[in-house]
Amino acid sequence: MKIYLDHAATTPLEPSVLEAMKPYFCNFFGNPSSTHSFGKETKEAIEDTRYKIARFLGANEDEIVFTSSGTEANNLAIKGVCFANKNKNHIITSQIEHHSVLEVCHFLEKEGFSVTYLPVDSYGFVSPDDVKKAITKKTILISIMHANNEIGTIEDIEEIGKIAWENDIYFHTDCVQTCSHIPLDVNSINADLVSISAHKLYGPKGVGALYIRRGTRIKPLLHGGGHEKGLRSSTENTPGIVGFGKAIEIAEDLMQDEIKKLTFLRDKLINGIMERVSARLNGHPEKRLPCNVNVSIKSINGEKLLLYLDREGIAASSASACSSSNEGPSHVLNAIGVPEEFIYGSIRFTLGRKTSDEEIDYVLDVLPKIVQKIEIASPIR
Amino acid sequence: MKIYLDHAATTPLEPSVLEAMKPYFCNFFGNPSSTHSFGKETKEAIEDTRYKIARFLGANEDEIVFTSSGTEANNLAIKGVCFANKNKNHIITSQIEHHSVLEVCHFLEKEGFSVTYLPVDSYGFVSPDDVKKAITKKTILISIMHANNEIGTIEDIEEIGKIAWENDIYFHTDCVQTCSHIPLDVNSINADLVSISAHKLYGPKGVGALYIRRGTRIKPLLHGGGHEKGLRSSTENTPGIVGFGKAIEIAEDLMQDEIKKLTFLRDKLINGIMERVSARLNGHPEKRLPCNVNVSIKSINGEKLLLYLDREGIAASSASACSSSNEGPSHVLNAIGVPEEFIYGSIRFTLGRKTSDEEIDYVLDVLPKIVQKIEIASPIR
Repeated sequence: MKIYLDHAATTPLEPSVLEAMKPYFCNFFGNPSSTHSFGKETKEAIEDTRYKIARFLGANEDEIVFTSSGTEANNLAIKGVCFANKNKNHIITSQIEHHSVLEVCHFLEKEGFSVTYLPVDSYGFVSPDDVKKAITKKTILISIMHANNEIGTIEDIEEIGKIAWENDIYFHTDCVQTCSHIPLDVNSINADLVSISAHKLYGPKGVGALYIRRGTRIKPLLHGGGHEKGLRSSTENTPGIVGFGKAIEIAEDLMQDEIKKLTFLRDKLINGIMERVSARLNGHPEKRLPCNVNVSIKSINGEKLLLYLDREGIAASSASACSSSNEGPSHVLNAIGVPEEFIYGSIRFTLGRKTSDEEIDYVLDVLPKIVQKIEIASPIR
Repeated sequence: MKIYLDHAATTPLEPSVLEAMKPYFCNFFGNPSSTHSFGKETKEAIEDTRYKIARFLGANEDEIVFTSSGTEANNLAIKGVCFANKNKNHIITSQIEHHSVLEVCHFLEKEGFSVTYLPVDSYGFVSPDDVKKAITKKTILISIMHANNEIGTIEDIEEIGKIAWENDIYFHTDCVQTCSHIPLDVNSINADLVSISAHKLYGPKGVGALYIRRGTRIKPLLHGGGHEKGLRSSTENTPGIVGFGKAIEIAEDLMQDEIKKLTFLRDKLINGIMERVSARLNGHPEKRLPCNVNVSIKSINGEKLLLYLDREGIAASSASACSSSNEGPSHVLNAIGVPEEFIYGSIRFTLGRKTSDEEIDYVLDVLPKIVQKIEIASPIR
């Protein structure tokens, strides 16, 4: 039995997405910038997808720029806007953003920008009031994620977007974990910049996109042939882009049903774990991603737990897979103040489209046994 | 009949490359940064590919960084090295580089760097002597392409690399047009940085790589989870990377035969055109890419010619497809001094793996008729 419960790290490609991509590998392969018929075919496919994604986000086609990943979208959004608006120098973000936001901010600090990293409460909520208070005359950009990738907490980005709008400050939100998983409309959240990624929604790896509201002053990261209206030079990844569009289309159809199904399975898993072992839930119990279960088990080595689960065929994660190396407890769990005796026993299960009731039962059967085994082998209490 | 003669713009994916990629879409899909078995499988596939590509280039595995494109590789190489070596401020390049080198240099000029754009002779050769003379105490980097994407001229990068090495200056070469088409070994050319791209060698779009010699001081463009030893954050595009490796493997096997075959067809096409219409060859007759035919036909509108060829099923290009918009004659043709009466009638045919003798015969049959038709319709002589 192999049970994949790490959908926040990445998702399998939906087979029908691969079918949609296939013609663009060997048959319709022209460079979309070519003026001949081979180029026109692929150009059209890309523009069709741009339209699909724009419509899904409530945006206009000319507001979508394709990138190679969510990380690139976050880099483009934050660096691009900051470098284009150097008359100001201040950024507001939170302590629990994804590394591709935090590391960009660290980089910008070295470039002379000033960054406020807002704390969060014990659920992981950024307080809109804190955002308001952090604003200065020099603030260019507020960047707050839609939902946290580790603990699943859904931020109040409607309110934060409104504050940004009222203060004439750009608002960026990293929606890599939420796009197509929970409703998202760029206008209802007053967002100027929204990052999304295909491989988190059963689309291909190597494709992302950035929504950029019309009129946003932004500079490119990649210079070259001037693709994507000069904002992202590179020959377009046609099959990848087509796959992204197909994946969004499918997700759009399934979203409401998936929210219901995953919320049920999520709560079953959370409650089942709580009943069986000494654990605490990280993140908010309701305002959380339908797929996300993040618990800390008391006095347990989480890495060992993961290893044992893996041996039993269950793939979970300690934090996010978005960092290529593990260096101690996650910045998110630190920020929400998980107590010392719990933090090292943290584990994230992220459910997906194919997750079944039986799989949850299996985890609930196996997990307590493993915990007990670890406790007996190394009694650290 | 559909004849694709624009292989410098992009190539169709080799079907066996798609076969090699397929398992990594829906089955082996884990995030390579994940520690569970799903992640280990894909991590292994990526490292296998890194080894393949390194071996092909005569490099070490730890000297290969995967990117999303040749453009990104060029951006990373040039910006990365310049920003990491700010004690100096000078770059040497040529007037005929790809846009992803030239536009990066223009960007760096705005950032306070100084750039020497070396002229070329009538064949498109950069003179190694000119390179030597342009060196100052402030020179960080020399960036000269291996072969030109428009006119096919192969530069003397062995000599230029030697000059860079003797003067302790980083040497970058854009090998996007040459990798796997003509021999390439990073050591014999003394290169510190080499850009390559999968979709130019029958691999997938959306994947490139940068060779970075050990010890090179370089900064990342994309900040985030620290993938690729911190030099390129982003979840790795596993199927794309695997496809890149497979494509290189196939190309390695076929290269010598392809060079022979394409050189024969190239010269047949060049000579045939010369015999039939009033044209001049752009680029060097022998020191040119085996696939490249670039001719300028006297007093003809090249765009019209392309359109008519397209109607007859022949896909060619006026310059490169790497620029998303056409703004007058190409910078390369200007740099080699193509006379006014020829420059607007320039056309590039780039041959590929599947190009046949019959296709060349067909072009040689159709082209003169089209030229005659255009001449009669708009006698601009």
